[in-house]
Amino acid sequence: MEQQDSTIARAGLDSPHRLIASNRVEGTAVYNRQGEKLGRIEYFMVDKMSGRAEYAVMSFGGLFGLGDNHYPLPWDVLDYDPDKGGYIVDLDKEKLKSGPSFRAGEEPDFDRDYDRRVFDYYGIVYTW
Amino acid sequence: MEQQDSTIARAGLDSPHRLIASNRVEGTAVYNRQGEKLGRIEYFMVDKMSGRAEYAVMSFGGLFGLGDNHYPLPWDVLDYDPDKGGYIVDLDKEKLKSGPSFRAGEEPDFDRDYDRRVFDYYGIVYTW
Repeated sequence: MEQQDSTIARAGLDSPHRLIASNRVEGTAVYNRQGEKLGRIEYFMVDKMSGRAEYAVMSFGGLFGLGDNHYPLPWDVLDYDPDKGGYIVDLDKEKLKSGPSFRAGEEPDFDRDYDRRVFDYYGIVYTW
Repeated sequence: MEQQDSTIARAGLDSPHRLIASNRVEGTAVYNRQGEKLGRIEYFMVDKMSGRAEYAVMSFGGLFGLGDNHYPLPWDVLDYDPDKGGYIVDLDKEKLKSGPSFRAGEEPDFDRDYDRRVFDYYGIVYTW
């Protein structure tokens, strides 16, 4: 497998390994299919028991004029791209802008009802 | 379900929910079966593609006189206890002290060989 060391090193991820430290997740870029950078992952929401990441919480920077809003995205909509050193989503900006969100520092109650709402919005089956 | 809000609130976890933010993982306590606090989780190692936490990286504080050494533990050895607001491990101090470790800031190459060594030491099947 061709190594993309310089690219992924620039992205701050450990190449060519599968694993990333949870405290290095912050800042991992998210792109759309056209290769435009949409934003970055601020943190993951992880199931305490299984250790499985259920969704990522993204910020979009100033791209949509939505500075410090955070957008939860189910993990299944993220497609990791080693070449880009980040995640790709098959979503357009309108879909994202209209999705569940909250202001940084004003997190919702991440209970099952909230989780389900996020999954339903993105059309992912909620199985927990 | 009886809520253990005050206990878990003291532990800094969001009770009674299943999820924890990856950036709040730091500091989650780890206890042995006798209820003694062994240390805390510094961060998780997460598979970039699947989002699954493979192992936690723990520090043991001054308990064993091992101040700033970090010890990777396969996720499967961690048993989340909502009442304690932390993780329980079925391990004694000798087993831990003798396990793979590295000094904070001197992380190893987290490649598959390293992963496999950690899993083998703790007797967990390595399936990646």
